[in-house]
Amino acid sequence: MRKVFQADLQQIGEELIQMSQLVASAMERAFESFRNADIELAQEVIAEDAKIDFLQTQLDERAIDVLALQGPVASDLRMIVGSLRMSASLERMGDLARHVAQLARLRFPQQVVPASVAPIFAEMAELDIAIAQKLGMLLDTRDLAIAREIIELNAKINKLHASIFKVVASADWDQSAPTTADVTLTSRYLERFGDHGVSVARKVSYLVTGEWEPVSEAF
Amino acid sequence: MRKVFQADLQQIGEELIQMSQLVASAMERAFESFRNADIELAQEVIAEDAKIDFLQTQLDERAIDVLALQGPVASDLRMIVGSLRMSASLERMGDLARHVAQLARLRFPQQVVPASVAPIFAEMAELDIAIAQKLGMLLDTRDLAIAREIIELNAKINKLHASIFKVVASADWDQSAPTTADVTLTSRYLERFGDHGVSVARKVSYLVTGEWEPVSEAF
Repeated sequence: MRKVFQADLQQIGEELIQMSQLVASAMERAFESFRNADIELAQEVIAEDAKIDFLQTQLDERAIDVLALQGPVASDLRMIVGSLRMSASLERMGDLARHVAQLARLRFPQQVVPASVAPIFAEMAELDIAIAQKLGMLLDTRDLAIAREIIELNAKINKLHASIFKVVASADWDQSAPTTADVTLTSRYLERFGDHGVSVARKVSYLVTGEWEPVSEAF
Repeated sequence: MRKVFQADLQQIGEELIQMSQLVASAMERAFESFRNADIELAQEVIAEDAKIDFLQTQLDERAIDVLALQGPVASDLRMIVGSLRMSASLERMGDLARHVAQLARLRFPQQVVPASVAPIFAEMAELDIAIAQKLGMLLDTRDLAIAREIIELNAKINKLHASIFKVVASADWDQSAPTTADVTLTSRYLERFGDHGVSVARKVSYLVTGEWEPVSEAF
């Protein structure tokens, strides 16, 4: 029984890593479709979000089976419950990547955002992708230095998110209202993606140390 | 043992109802602070979000204890796991109410949104509050007619959310870019609140029927 159980835990861990990788790739491709007004790529990302949703369902069913059949306690139980939380955050990150692709599709053949703010979003997306990639490594190695890196990357995203509102409020912002709305939503999606990444990183830290990591980012 | 277990399940159910009520009240007060540019009320809502977070932590710890000590299976297990999901959605609804209050605080003593769109937001907030109140009733009675009502209320929110983007894109929209950004975020917060309410309602339906309710809303 014990051996089966460890195999289940390992399987769940691997599925979380796989979800992180899919989510990293989803954001990478979503932002590429957004940056290049590439509607075909956008459609692909939108369609492929179902894979991430499916993985979540599969992982959650496995976790519930383990709870029912193995009755885990203590740290194993927290790991299973934590996995349910992490899979929910990762699924949500997939949704946010999809939202970015949906904006690209909505505005095609136009660009969603003007050239003046494109570099800020490119930087945010790059940080988001790095966060999702590092989540895979963190889940694999349990090296908490990676959790701290994720928190730092997210702090940078928060600063860039705030800078978008400064740009929008500045005197030289001469974009249309729908573009302002799109810029606001894009910034919000990219910011939320990072936040969910931090949730996962903090959950891993908690599972490893038994304590919530102090979150050093300034909110 | 069995009796203790039922008491635990009942306690978890009551805490979910309590969270729904707090969340309904949070959105009611948040929107009042938003509508009246009432910074004191906004501050209260922001501070009181910690209560909702605390309730979630308490509920989750209780659920994990039940999993560890009672080893529930079948529908009891799904109820406990479902509670963890519902508490997460309710906590997030509390965050979104707080975000509305934070916008009120940020723009004080100004109104966040112009008079032209205020009635749309008032309607969205009213629907959100109704959803949160109905969640309490649904959790209490398990009457699935209430779940369907919640889904219908949310469909109305989605329409109002879409209408905001039409207003912003119309020729007579003459508001500043920061106001356009605030209008976009407000609409997004109010829309997400309803979505989370639907997640909870669908989870209750699933726990009662064993099947996911077909979601009849148009996206």
